[in-house]
Amino acid sequence: VTEKLSIAAAPGTVQGNATFVAGGLGAVRGLRCAGVSAGFRRNPQRKDLALVVTDAPALAAGVFTQNSFCAAPVQLSRYHLRNTSCPYGEEEKLKATGQGKRHSRAIILNSGNANANTGTPGLEIASQTAKLVAEQLGCDPFHVLVASTGVIGVPLSAELFQTGVPLAMAALGPSDASPAAHAAALDAAQAIMTTDTLPKQAAVQFTATQSDGLEVTYTIGGMVKGSGMIQPNMATLLGVLATDAWLNQTAMKIALQKAINLTLNRVTVDSDTSTNDSVFMLATGATPGKTINAACPLFAPFVQALTVLLEDLARQIAWDGEGASKLVTVQVTGAKDDKEADAAARSIANSPLVKTAIAGHDANWGRIAMALGKSGAQFEQEDVDIDLMGLAVCRGGLPVAFDEQEALRLFESEKEILINANLGTGGNGQARIWTCDLTHDYITINGDYRT
Amino acid sequence: VTEKLSIAAAPGTVQGNATFVAGGLGAVRGLRCAGVSAGFRRNPQRKDLALVVTDAPALAAGVFTQNSFCAAPVQLSRYHLRNTSCPYGEEEKLKATGQGKRHSRAIILNSGNANANTGTPGLEIASQTAKLVAEQLGCDPFHVLVASTGVIGVPLSAELFQTGVPLAMAALGPSDASPAAHAAALDAAQAIMTTDTLPKQAAVQFTATQSDGLEVTYTIGGMVKGSGMIQPNMATLLGVLATDAWLNQTAMKIALQKAINLTLNRVTVDSDTSTNDSVFMLATGATPGKTINAACPLFAPFVQALTVLLEDLARQIAWDGEGASKLVTVQVTGAKDDKEADAAARSIANSPLVKTAIAGHDANWGRIAMALGKSGAQFEQEDVDIDLMGLAVCRGGLPVAFDEQEALRLFESEKEILINANLGTGGNGQARIWTCDLTHDYITINGDYRT
Repeated sequence: VTEKLSIAAAPGTVQGNATFVAGGLGAVRGLRCAGVSAGFRRNPQRKDLALVVTDAPALAAGVFTQNSFCAAPVQLSRYHLRNTSCPYGEEEKLKATGQGKRHSRAIILNSGNANANTGTPGLEIASQTAKLVAEQLGCDPFHVLVASTGVIGVPLSAELFQTGVPLAMAALGPSDASPAAHAAALDAAQAIMTTDTLPKQAAVQFTATQSDGLEVTYTIGGMVKGSGMIQPNMATLLGVLATDAWLNQTAMKIALQKAINLTLNRVTVDSDTSTNDSVFMLATGATPGKTINAACPLFAPFVQALTVLLEDLARQIAWDGEGASKLVTVQVTGAKDDKEADAAARSIANSPLVKTAIAGHDANWGRIAMALGKSGAQFEQEDVDIDLMGLAVCRGGLPVAFDEQEALRLFESEKEILINANLGTGGNGQARIWTCDLTHDYITINGDYRT
Repeated sequence: VTEKLSIAAAPGTVQGNATFVAGGLGAVRGLRCAGVSAGFRRNPQRKDLALVVTDAPALAAGVFTQNSFCAAPVQLSRYHLRNTSCPYGEEEKLKATGQGKRHSRAIILNSGNANANTGTPGLEIASQTAKLVAEQLGCDPFHVLVASTGVIGVPLSAELFQTGVPLAMAALGPSDASPAAHAAALDAAQAIMTTDTLPKQAAVQFTATQSDGLEVTYTIGGMVKGSGMIQPNMATLLGVLATDAWLNQTAMKIALQKAINLTLNRVTVDSDTSTNDSVFMLATGATPGKTINAACPLFAPFVQALTVLLEDLARQIAWDGEGASKLVTVQVTGAKDDKEADAAARSIANSPLVKTAIAGHDANWGRIAMALGKSGAQFEQEDVDIDLMGLAVCRGGLPVAFDEQEALRLFESEKEILINANLGTGGNGQARIWTCDLTHDYITINGDYRT
């Protein structure tokens, strides 16, 4: 396997109202990161415990997997964000009525073990982990969020957190967006990797004018991990996002859901939905400015910049999908509505036959037609146009002679394979989905994941 | 690739009210088969044109793909069975009002080219093919059904039928269920193969008592082809079934739909639904007896025997799925209803992560739990039990210590991998789905299918 280069936007790239900057989460003032090796993974060289700590209580929000077999840390973090009732003892429940609702001081994430299908003992370990971090920070355990990723159905060791949490605390970088903060954020991004071959992080800045006429510049940064069991369902994979702005609760929740629906929820690697999907967002307020609410002039620019950031992270996930050699972007237009466009695009993006054809550099557009046809989206086959990498391959449902040599050349030279399908219904429905090809490496990676 | 042995039931095997016999379609009296090499495939050694002809007009029924991009032969055959309005010229439409509605004399099937996404020219070629066969038989073109399988979006040559149909006519075997008839049926089953490594056919006999007290014995035989782009959706793959009984139209349609829903519609290789799925059934009436209608005492035994036959064919398809090394049978019980059980079983059977784990001989049941959780079926995770190859691996949503060495031994020795999941809802919903594992060979086969 040749080493993969990142597809992340380079610092300085401008997209919409946002400019990419270096440093990932480390670009955001008011929080500190660490990533250490704590023994969760067999390979002692690999980092496997990430910690993100804010200098002061940060506004927090989260979106979680819709999988019924959701893991213990998902149940715990949902509760700590007060999105659900208490999954464990009564004593804890009382604390939930306390101060600081929806604020967090820290997020602790381990790789190597998902703490899923582990029952009450698993919940107990997630709860102890939050307490361990809270003790170190002198805060309430409710202000600590927990996430795990890795193998399902294997008990997670509490001892590893007892030794690992102090290690991670000692390794925390500065909260000043300095190069040292960037380095610590990279450590954290590396610590949450599972079968990912690349750490995935990004940061953007945007400038906008407040209601009082003052111009402000905010940073939003984030890290995510892929790279298998990826088809988020109204939630998403493992990720931590942060901003140095300050928002009210409603604004942050709406912004996060809007941006995720357009980005992370439009990635599919293998159509499988994780038991552990969790994305957290923290607002530190470390950069002065007015509180952003859903009605203020800063809200739209904030959502736009957050969407740019998350689109870059979504593309990074698809590009680094298990075994992937290509990023595949599927764009469906001309559907009756956006929902039908989404079903059609997802059907293409999840078709093993489309994905193996791309892996084989085969412009077999008939399989794209097949995937459209089975999607349930309404259309007449004689109205459908398909383009592959910009080449017209199908017009009005019929083959178009195209230059197979040129197609092969594009397959060999392009990192990103673009599929465009226009359903020609006269409707304006459209959707974009990111995925990757299906290669031998996917089989190799997943044929012996546990062993 | 080592040569695969068939998983078909051996002649003499008794299942329910049915006894397996040799000969496939060739076991059915009153019809003749042929399979010849007519140049549709590049390899001149491979048969690629199959013809099935009845001695007299046979009662006919068909079920077809639900893919919106359905192929020309599907449109034509649907029309010839009067399930749709005319897809082509007005002149033909008039004939549709004529005699012999729902009767057929012949089915012509080619492999190597699906005649899909080929527009009006493709429809014209399918129509000409029916006429060619009709001329040879001296019957109406409406009494000829057409099916194609192979690559999508490539024009099909009319000339190959002009030379191929007379060749196939000349090669037709006898209609007397003799060894020569068996050999001709095997030729036909070979001619419809695409990426199949084995021809797939079966035949059963059953004995039952008519309303007049007379005991009758009927034969039902069939051939099908897999082996990729297989997830039938209220229709199925390419297949021809026949019986020497005589039924009325309603009884045959109900019997076919009932049996298919329990068998062929419960196979999935790769979750992709073909543009060309067609299953035809012919009743020759060559063995004397009363007409079977949906109310007579013969109907239930007929449906039962047909279901036994189709279950065997369904298992053959899953076993010979593209690249498959294992037949995987997924059984879900304890769901709220059968529909939820079906969704849960299909979610497991289509999960690339479950299928690669089986290919890797890895008892990674956490992925089975994940697939249940994303299926949308309602259950509480603490009520779920999972067994893998008869080993209890999960009880009440929690891991059970099991003998990993025994699991490995079973993975290595068993052709069929059984997954049982009980959702524990207190409901009686259950479903069974057949699939196969996902191996490197699937990628190899589909990475360069056209080239």
